[in-house]
Amino acid sequence: MNFNEEYQKRVELIEEVLKRYLPEKEGYQKIITEAMEYSLMAGGKRIRPMLMRESYELFGGKGKLIEPFMAAIEMIHTYSLVHDDLPAMDNDDYRRGRKTTHVVYGEDIGILAGDALLNYAFETACTAFDLEPEHSLQIGKALQILAGKAGIFGMIGGQTVDVKESGHRISEDVLDFIYRLKTGALIEASVMVGAVLAGASDDETAQMENIAAKVGMAFQIQDDILDVTSTTEMLGKPVHSDEKNEKTTYVTLIGLDKAGKEAERLTSEALCGLRGLGHENKFLEALLDWLVYREK
Amino acid sequence: MNFNEEYQKRVELIEEVLKRYLPEKEGYQKIITEAMEYSLMAGGKRIRPMLMRESYELFGGKGKLIEPFMAAIEMIHTYSLVHDDLPAMDNDDYRRGRKTTHVVYGEDIGILAGDALLNYAFETACTAFDLEPEHSLQIGKALQILAGKAGIFGMIGGQTVDVKESGHRISEDVLDFIYRLKTGALIEASVMVGAVLAGASDDETAQMENIAAKVGMAFQIQDDILDVTSTTEMLGKPVHSDEKNEKTTYVTLIGLDKAGKEAERLTSEALCGLRGLGHENKFLEALLDWLVYREK
Repeated sequence: MNFNEEYQKRVELIEEVLKRYLPEKEGYQKIITEAMEYSLMAGGKRIRPMLMRESYELFGGKGKLIEPFMAAIEMIHTYSLVHDDLPAMDNDDYRRGRKTTHVVYGEDIGILAGDALLNYAFETACTAFDLEPEHSLQIGKALQILAGKAGIFGMIGGQTVDVKESGHRISEDVLDFIYRLKTGALIEASVMVGAVLAGASDDETAQMENIAAKVGMAFQIQDDILDVTSTTEMLGKPVHSDEKNEKTTYVTLIGLDKAGKEAERLTSEALCGLRGLGHENKFLEALLDWLVYREK
Repeated sequence: MNFNEEYQKRVELIEEVLKRYLPEKEGYQKIITEAMEYSLMAGGKRIRPMLMRESYELFGGKGKLIEPFMAAIEMIHTYSLVHDDLPAMDNDDYRRGRKTTHVVYGEDIGILAGDALLNYAFETACTAFDLEPEHSLQIGKALQILAGKAGIFGMIGGQTVDVKESGHRISEDVLDFIYRLKTGALIEASVMVGAVLAGASDDETAQMENIAAKVGMAFQIQDDILDVTSTTEMLGKPVHSDEKNEKTTYVTLIGLDKAGKEAERLTSEALCGLRGLGHENKFLEALLDWLVYREK
């Protein structure tokens, strides 16, 4: 398997799905739909919808039921970035080499575009009821997972603690909490929604959650490592930003070497769990590997 | 019927439901749940959950299925106020005589608390799948209405145009658009969700939408009128704010007298539509009347 080729093929498919689910840019409120598209189509690794679709296929899912949820999770991820970048939060003017949404459209539209993406994520996911009304109960379950993992006991909870603790030295406990919620929760949601919509059992879904928790943590630790070892050109964003912002990271807590070993350990456990499920998806295995060995 | 007594009884029931559906205030992210409670339990007329429940009963709805949706719509209304009050939007320090959320908790937590309320609204509404899994299809339909009316073709769309046009003179067309979406959409969602969950037909639900559109418009025109005719003590917020902000309103466009007549006409049409449905809810009729003849 040529991983890069397979990966790129999937990114293209995902971007086609995203474009299809974006709202029409028309009416008096046109500016908000433009801002939504600007932020959603700004590139990115698309790993959440990718993990969702691969998990769906792992459990034998076929057809288009997964697509509105793929679009929804990327909209949720994107809204969180749009709001993170606001002046009252991280105050970032650039992301992935482009001006951030509030810089282009103004702070008021930046706030509203984030709200709009979050709301539209649920609107989009709900179109699944029209696609397969006979699977309403499964769709309801998937919605519950999506909403739960995006909320105060998931991503928003992690973001809250991250914001409140920024500028302080924090313990490994608190750092784990932030990473598990801020980064891990949506990765867990991705694979769980894929599993549930494909008809996986509660037990299989819980196993996928467990695997994704390790993947999310490894992914975030690798982010910490790249901030120290990579270059701005390679990463497409400034390196050494954690040091500059005096951020506690896995690297500052346990050092570069141990952090690398921890990320490898978590990934190898995740792969082990995945292989033990009795289903096979070679690309998903390669993807988990890439997430921790990636160089950007 | 003693309207005030009946109304107060319902407000108490709604606040009991809201408290029951609020998340636990615990964990590292405790501050966000505190900010959610602070904004949600700040009083208010509670007309959206009230209209929802009365519409549910109008169509013979019984039991608790409506409650998570009652909480959800008030959470959505509240998040919109929290974000409206932010410095980059209306920059209001006080609402209903209390400091606004971002003033108490900081602007970052103000943004996150709004996000959290919007997300938690969907989390809460989704608990309906656990209450009555056999009605998953109806619950899915209610979710679609809720999300649609709260989004870019509903409330957020209206808010976007309101923000972009603030400070300009606008036409009656644009003002209608803003009122219909910013205020009307959630009022429409309220009665439609009530109808759908009670098992009303598509036709009945569409009739309720139509009635609510008139009610929403009348309610907003009455707001414009009270801003001119009431006192700060009576209203609990500064009067003459529209004049101060050079806002186009129904009063500036067509004058106080005609605006009053328009609100009365809309309400009487709405009541006519309601009475023509073949179901009866005397309190709902009185409530629609009160919404346009209220003095605060």
